[in-house]
Amino acid sequence: MNLIVQKYGGSSLADADGIKRVAQRIVATRKAGHGVVVVVSAMGDTTDELHDLALEVSPLPPGRELDMLLTAGERISMALVAMAIANLGFEARSFTGSQAGVITDSVHGKARIIDVTPGRISSALADGAIPIVAGFQGVSQDSKDITTLGRGGSDTTAVALAAALGAQTCEIYTDVDGVFTADPRIVPAARRIPVISYDEMLEMAASGAKVLHLRCVEYARHYQMAIHVRSSFSSREGTWVAEAPAAQPEENGMDQPIITGVAHDRSEATITVSGIPDKVGVAAKIFRVVARSGINIDMIVQSTSRSTGQADISFTLPRQDGQTAMTVLRGVQEEVGFDSLVFDDRIGKISLIGAGMRSHPGVSADFFGALADSGINIRMISTSEIRISAVVDAADLDSAVVATHRAFGLEDGQAEAVVYGGTGR
Amino acid sequence: MNLIVQKYGGSSLADADGIKRVAQRIVATRKAGHGVVVVVSAMGDTTDELHDLALEVSPLPPGRELDMLLTAGERISMALVAMAIANLGFEARSFTGSQAGVITDSVHGKARIIDVTPGRISSALADGAIPIVAGFQGVSQDSKDITTLGRGGSDTTAVALAAALGAQTCEIYTDVDGVFTADPRIVPAARRIPVISYDEMLEMAASGAKVLHLRCVEYARHYQMAIHVRSSFSSREGTWVAEAPAAQPEENGMDQPIITGVAHDRSEATITVSGIPDKVGVAAKIFRVVARSGINIDMIVQSTSRSTGQADISFTLPRQDGQTAMTVLRGVQEEVGFDSLVFDDRIGKISLIGAGMRSHPGVSADFFGALADSGINIRMISTSEIRISAVVDAADLDSAVVATHRAFGLEDGQAEAVVYGGTGR
Repeated sequence: MNLIVQKYGGSSLADADGIKRVAQRIVATRKAGHGVVVVVSAMGDTTDELHDLALEVSPLPPGRELDMLLTAGERISMALVAMAIANLGFEARSFTGSQAGVITDSVHGKARIIDVTPGRISSALADGAIPIVAGFQGVSQDSKDITTLGRGGSDTTAVALAAALGAQTCEIYTDVDGVFTADPRIVPAARRIPVISYDEMLEMAASGAKVLHLRCVEYARHYQMAIHVRSSFSSREGTWVAEAPAAQPEENGMDQPIITGVAHDRSEATITVSGIPDKVGVAAKIFRVVARSGINIDMIVQSTSRSTGQADISFTLPRQDGQTAMTVLRGVQEEVGFDSLVFDDRIGKISLIGAGMRSHPGVSADFFGALADSGINIRMISTSEIRISAVVDAADLDSAVVATHRAFGLEDGQAEAVVYGGTGR
Repeated sequence: MNLIVQKYGGSSLADADGIKRVAQRIVATRKAGHGVVVVVSAMGDTTDELHDLALEVSPLPPGRELDMLLTAGERISMALVAMAIANLGFEARSFTGSQAGVITDSVHGKARIIDVTPGRISSALADGAIPIVAGFQGVSQDSKDITTLGRGGSDTTAVALAAALGAQTCEIYTDVDGVFTADPRIVPAARRIPVISYDEMLEMAASGAKVLHLRCVEYARHYQMAIHVRSSFSSREGTWVAEAPAAQPEENGMDQPIITGVAHDRSEATITVSGIPDKVGVAAKIFRVVARSGINIDMIVQSTSRSTGQADISFTLPRQDGQTAMTVLRGVQEEVGFDSLVFDDRIGKISLIGAGMRSHPGVSADFFGALADSGINIRMISTSEIRISAVVDAADLDSAVVATHRAFGLEDGQAEAVVYGGTGR
């Protein structure tokens, strides 16, 4: 009997009706002859509500206690799903992350899974029961304290459990039909991507696509676990995330689209440090104080004035870290000797992702051309082997996504995607 | 350093403000030089709300899953209390029943504590932290599944933990000032009882007094753990439940009131089985089918007609079990051969409790006299060594409580309680 791990997100478990619908889908999978292990998130907005409750009690709740609190969310949803399955005549047993053997490090709020020892899950399966496992949570190896894996952690639980149990597939159920070539709310003609490679999915997730979280995809790639992202509201095929050759034209002939999708991100801001003296180590000092505050910097641009020798440095960072970064930088202004600091959160980032880009240098030119044709000014650029990102004005972001998506032939109804010859351009 | 276990109920933890107030009280106890271990119930009506949610999903949720669900309630409150204490500059660590070593049998929904192995609690105390323990819950010895102890189970957790840790006192915080001579909502002049013996408290709890649950008092008696029932909204002394000689006049002279309090219960109903044939074993058969349905019968009255030889049997049972009992009895009517069944839930039970009653047979007569003087008809009677109970019409219950409370001199402002001479009457 092959084993499928199914993960259901909060939007699929928003109320009693949603829970009953999910139970029916689980039972249907079982009746189709598969072994099933289920991983659940908290119902609807439960996690946010619990977080708000914590802030009512304490402005800075200790991580250990916040994790203890938040894990109540999956405890509620997993018990309810198990009850709904029992109602359909099948035995289901719910398990906390700790009971399911999800062992983590001790970093509360964003713990990493160290090991999965799902002995009780295997026993339940052997007994013919359907195990329902709390996502997002584990127990720390050292202190035996309850931990959480951070936002989107339930996806990671599902993939890690699937790998530990030797499951065939990990199905991630959500409220959309899969991964799209762009956000359908911005580009109504965006198409579902049938298959996407781990590397591309990683870049999509890192660039703002919200359907799967980064760490979950990293896990899946590491364990070569195929993920099927699909909707719990329909029976349509979704998107397979796997070691797929589909987007690698050099191996599969010339007629594969080299661009997989367009992602966007509105959660960043820029800080520009102007008038930095032309001395060795000054830039390093600036980034060191920011890094010490635990802030992740994404893109960096430096420009130097030929006349003065002074430099300007701009970088992007999560918008929510803006105040902290500005405060620590202001604190070293005198020591470092720069002139001014400017914070700008009216920016957006657009990213073009495709494994085929590796062998096709012409993509950048076409991308920038598409933006230029729409009169959109590019403020910063960064690239990886399979991604090009540009920072633009926030007001231009939607039209940048639409223009780029169309320029690369990704729209539904466009005869076919733009393909590049083998020579590049 | 002496150790105090404090238990806070849901009404004391109804919202963020309540949680902060409780945290201040805990910290104050600690600052006064005591070691403190805290046991919490779920916030406000959380347990009822979770139960309602379960019924939305399944009409008959499996006990294992219902327990998993309900235990989310204390998980939330304990984490919030720990956060609020951290806010006041003390370290608190929350522990689930399982983590606190509360080992139970496997009877979901009303598990019994088998053992308490509070190793992690002792370690936390040794580290200088304040342990916050989830009441009402444990983990089954056999299956390692999460269990609950039934309503009022948090009180039991507190007493069991206090005994296991060798605590000096177990303080049960609630929203009233202690145990009263009668329910102050019915008898505004009811007095707080300063000290009550375990036996009397057991009878009070079994007779409908809601402030402490039966099993908690049984535990306390077994371990000789002194309980201090008091309000979390004031600093007044409450009621001490202990092996107190106060109500035993034969040991302490003649001037002790022999009646401790008046309890009442509106949760029962009666079933009358009429026209039962005069044959051996028929009554046994009737009670056997009721017992098999898991229904606890309280009082029983049998009367036999001299002319026909047929008997009528009336008994009391929890009102909520009425439908089940009527159904199973109807099912054996032909076999047993009785004439008719009558269900009546318009009844109430009043009980008079006092350890001094042992040596004073006159109490019954005074009790029945007080009811008769108020024109109240007694329908059933039962007694224990230290309790007399009477079933009356539901409409008469309040006036029965008032009349009895006054007749035995229990009112605040009455010069003194009625005392009985050594000869009885």
